[in-house]
Amino acid sequence: MARSSDDTSARPSRSGEQRLEELVGQMGLVDHHCHGIVRGPLDRAGFESLLCEADAPGRLHGTLFDTQVGLAVRRLCGPVLDLPPHAPADDYLARRAALGSDEVARRLLRGAGISEFLVDTGFRPDGLTSPDELAACAGASAREIVRLETVAERVIATHETGDFVEACRDRLAAAAATAIGFKSIAAYRVGLDLAPDRPPTNQVAAAAARWAAGIERGAPIRLSDETLIRFLIWTAVDLGRPIQFHTGFGDADADLGRCDPLLLAPLLRATAGLGVPIMLLHTYPFHRNAGCLAQVFDHVFVDVGLAVQNVGSRAGQVVAELLELAPFGSVLFSSDGYGLPELFHVSAMLFRRALSGFLAAGVEGDAWSERDAERIAYLIAAENARRVYGLDDGGAGRGSLA
Amino acid sequence: MARSSDDTSARPSRSGEQRLEELVGQMGLVDHHCHGIVRGPLDRAGFESLLCEADAPGRLHGTLFDTQVGLAVRRLCGPVLDLPPHAPADDYLARRAALGSDEVARRLLRGAGISEFLVDTGFRPDGLTSPDELAACAGASAREIVRLETVAERVIATHETGDFVEACRDRLAAAAATAIGFKSIAAYRVGLDLAPDRPPTNQVAAAAARWAAGIERGAPIRLSDETLIRFLIWTAVDLGRPIQFHTGFGDADADLGRCDPLLLAPLLRATAGLGVPIMLLHTYPFHRNAGCLAQVFDHVFVDVGLAVQNVGSRAGQVVAELLELAPFGSVLFSSDGYGLPELFHVSAMLFRRALSGFLAAGVEGDAWSERDAERIAYLIAAENARRVYGLDDGGAGRGSLA
Amino acid sequence: MARSSDDTSARPSRSGEQRLEELVGQMGLVDHHCHGIVRGPLDRAGFESLLCEADAPGRLHGTLFDTQVGLAVRRLCGPVLDLPPHAPADDYLARRAALGSDEVARRLLRGAGISEFLVDTGFRPDGLTSPDELAACAGASAREIVRLETVAERVIATHETGDFVEACRDRLAAAAATAIGFKSIAAYRVGLDLAPDRPPTNQVAAAAARWAAGIERGAPIRLSDETLIRFLIWTAVDLGRPIQFHTGFGDADADLGRCDPLLLAPLLRATAGLGVPIMLLHTYPFHRNAGCLAQVFDHVFVDVGLAVQNVGSRAGQVVAELLELAPFGSVLFSSDGYGLPELFHVSAMLFRRALSGFLAAGVEGDAWSERDAERIAYLIAAENARRVYGLDDGGAGRGSLA
Repeated sequence: MARSSDDTSARPSRSGEQRLEELVGQMGLVDHHCHGIVRGPLDRAGFESLLCEADAPGRLHGTLFDTQVGLAVRRLCGPVLDLPPHAPADDYLARRAALGSDEVARRLLRGAGISEFLVDTGFRPDGLTSPDELAACAGASAREIVRLETVAERVIATHETGDFVEACRDRLAAAAATAIGFKSIAAYRVGLDLAPDRPPTNQVAAAAARWAAGIERGAPIRLSDETLIRFLIWTAVDLGRPIQFHTGFGDADADLGRCDPLLLAPLLRATAGLGVPIMLLHTYPFHRNAGCLAQVFDHVFVDVGLAVQNVGSRAGQVVAELLELAPFGSVLFSSDGYGLPELFHVSAMLFRRALSGFLAAGVEGDAWSERDAERIAYLIAAENARRVYGLDDGGAGRGSLA
Repeated sequence: MARSSDDTSARPSRSGEQRLEELVGQMGLVDHHCHGIVRGPLDRAGFESLLCEADAPGRLHGTLFDTQVGLAVRRLCGPVLDLPPHAPADDYLARRAALGSDEVARRLLRGAGISEFLVDTGFRPDGLTSPDELAACAGASAREIVRLETVAERVIATHETGDFVEACRDRLAAAAATAIGFKSIAAYRVGLDLAPDRPPTNQVAAAAARWAAGIERGAPIRLSDETLIRFLIWTAVDLGRPIQFHTGFGDADADLGRCDPLLLAPLLRATAGLGVPIMLLHTYPFHRNAGCLAQVFDHVFVDVGLAVQNVGSRAGQVVAELLELAPFGSVLFSSDGYGLPELFHVSAMLFRRALSGFLAAGVEGDAWSERDAERIAYLIAAENARRVYGLDDGGAGRGSLA
Repeated sequence: MARSSDDTSARPSRSGEQRLEELVGQMGLVDHHCHGIVRGPLDRAGFESLLCEADAPGRLHGTLFDTQVGLAVRRLCGPVLDLPPHAPADDYLARRAALGSDEVARRLLRGAGISEFLVDTGFRPDGLTSPDELAACAGASAREIVRLETVAERVIATHETGDFVEACRDRLAAAAATAIGFKSIAAYRVGLDLAPDRPPTNQVAAAAARWAAGIERGAPIRLSDETLIRFLIWTAVDLGRPIQFHTGFGDADADLGRCDPLLLAPLLRATAGLGVPIMLLHTYPFHRNAGCLAQVFDHVFVDVGLAVQNVGSRAGQVVAELLELAPFGSVLFSSDGYGLPELFHVSAMLFRRALSGFLAAGVEGDAWSERDAERIAYLIAAENARRVYGLDDGGAGRGSLA
């Protein structure tokens, strides 16, 4: 930041940086996108299969502990389990087994300092803790995010194809009474280049009939029809709740080239005036693209959830890139924790460090004041999420600042 | 940069870095792409609506001052208006109103240290200063950049459809007599994946007739026909002046996915031997892509104009990324200032800091000598633009080094 | 990296960083993708035409020494030829001529510290050293990488069109007996959005017949048929050797938009279970995309070969970005040296500095231990390549860890 000749501001003291780190370290985070955790013991293969987006460790790359996230778990979670930092993976897993998974989860989740979890319950819920169980374990509160495609798959599974459209509408309306928002995994199923218009009901019914017929003939119950997915999204729009979209990096099931949030631009334009927040999750490696969208669309919110845990020591760089274009009022925290309590802990710790590092660098470079830095930290850590999901008024609001 | 055992170079002294910062701080910049400014007072909503690419502050994100560019204005422009750095937005706007917009513009533009403005006059010129007015206010000189699509829209508006082709050719030839270059906003209208060939005249005439017929039926006068846009581009190529293309980030009107400069590759290949410089403006978040194009095409020039003001404290990182692949002889400065004199000031200040920071880091890391750093600074700050636009010979040249 | 309250680890001493730099500086690198060098003298134009991906210096940008790679050559190679660092380009070329190209090559290649070269012999081999010549000059060993498209072009040139399919199979099988792997330049010829399935033999034969007929009519012998390229890839898959793909940045011959490794996702999914490693070369500016692929596909390996030499002082940043998502067991070194021994030297020096800088920053930030850093350095510098190409067992293995 260039300094003008009449610059009279003092350089921030070292203790100013420390104050900022402490402040962000103590903030209760709102984790606006996560999943439940696995209860019970895990062997090394089971643990590694949940550690990152690879299905399982393979014979060519070697152990998945040799990743940024693997090193971050050893560094950040080991001490919470009474190990020295960087203890070897086998030591870590042995200590984990000795403590028991409940105690491990309790320590790691509580140490994460997350005050509120918004939990996507649509992916393999049977093996995972419910939102209430997660909240109890963490000593926090939790709200549910309902996955649109899962609702439709439950409808079709119960053979309600005659009134598929009505059944979906009813179930989503019922969900909206308690859930805090919706989520779509269109990225995984058909890609994000969705047509922007609301599909006519007769087209939806026809697509549902084709889907049902396929299932009759033995196809798995897996929604991958673009018309039906758009129908679900527009039904959710009508209900006024924030809608999350998976974008960016995910597992091998998704074609990453179809997950660029820029593909959503037509839908974002179509929904711009409706007051329904659209949440672009993860976004990496397209997080700068997402930042551009967040600047030009007031209803677009962004995070780098899954990326933070995965990029480990590089989280500061990735968060800073998101914060180039995205307005500070549009950025959220999510852990994208799934399965392992370690991932919540690592995400929260790395995000705090990344955020306070970004803000402290700006103070150090005199780009902004310490006071502004503190205010922005609160926005990103919790206030943006509280406002846009209406957390303080029970989720009834639509996040208006008014 | 690795050091060999026979390395006898001394580390640069701290004063070497300061010298470089001072040197770049005092260089007169050539701003090869900007617009006019708004005269007259602006209220907070009006000011925010010009601050970044969002149309206006919205009810979900909150104030647009909570952006990198908003913080940069408070930091960098406040002191020019006699305020302390980081003064609150309302204080800034009050002081701005008290000084009056002419005095504000005079201070901010003169403080930017821009010696020459190349002004795109094709976007909402009625509400903005002319190039001469801008130059007078800044104590600098200015040349005009003629927007191709605007010329065609004026031709069609005057019902010259019978000889649309000839009328466009005549007007562009007349423009080339005084203007220093052309600009296309194909990115906004049809995207950058333009067919590379020159369209036949009969196809152009037919497309113009269709366009005119649409306007007769009440369509707005807005050129969005790919054939016509290619015709304009090739007409400009024939006139030998540099042609600017909007690429990358812009307002919500553009689909960013269609603004990747890589989409221009076929047209760049088709124009590679013709000696007509092609200027890729803005390029963020595709600036590394643009750098690749600038390395392999000698007639391609690049900047990160609009991005620098928008990314604020991150300008150093973005400029450094552009300078990975782009030859130093291919990189230009532009402010993309529009409406607010603050944007010129912020762009110039941030760009200087980014450029001198990049060059000083290379000297500090012994990647290049201080002498090379100074030479490269002059190239990027002004000499590349002077050469390629032929500024020193009245714009008559085509930028040859020969 | 966040520190827990029970963190008892000491900060690494400055000498720890130096140890890491020295360790990486002394490691013998496996260069898993390079070409031969030009023997004989080069004038300035000839030298510049080999310096980066521009065909030759042009009249608009000026000398190609004004690039990151040009400055890196002057900095890093000058001292090897007894010049001071940063000596001017003309001095460098004069000293180069005085020493003679053999002595220059000997010094620069030996100074690079590469112990093993995997040499792509398929591009203009007549003007370049053979793998054995390169190895002798460098005091190292070399193995051959056979370029698939070149094999097919040789088959078609010898009019074996009647049994094109069998002839290709035979030649590739023969090649596999001595070569260490294959390479495809599909990116240059048809782009990377290849259909994932193996083409039926009759379709391959028909495509070959069309190609032969075109050559009969005077077309150049240049394979650019997607069916034939897929046939070659699947034939190579059957042979079980690692297959390299050009991805990302290259010369003006390629459309960079078609070189994004994400386009390969369907083929990667189709080959995921087969145990054949797929090597994504260069990858810049899509290296983060490549890192995502390397995490979710165990058989995918990645480098930033060509980029490292080209980005010069920015190599540390680019390597660090690759190492965000790519497992440490999936990352390789390549110089992509071609023509000039300088490019091998610069690549090796910059890569060492980038790798040790990345690892030392992690130690400094307490993201990992020095011991982990050393282990990861060995993996990336050589062990991953030795394992996956089976270098220690004569190339017979397929890189299994088992």
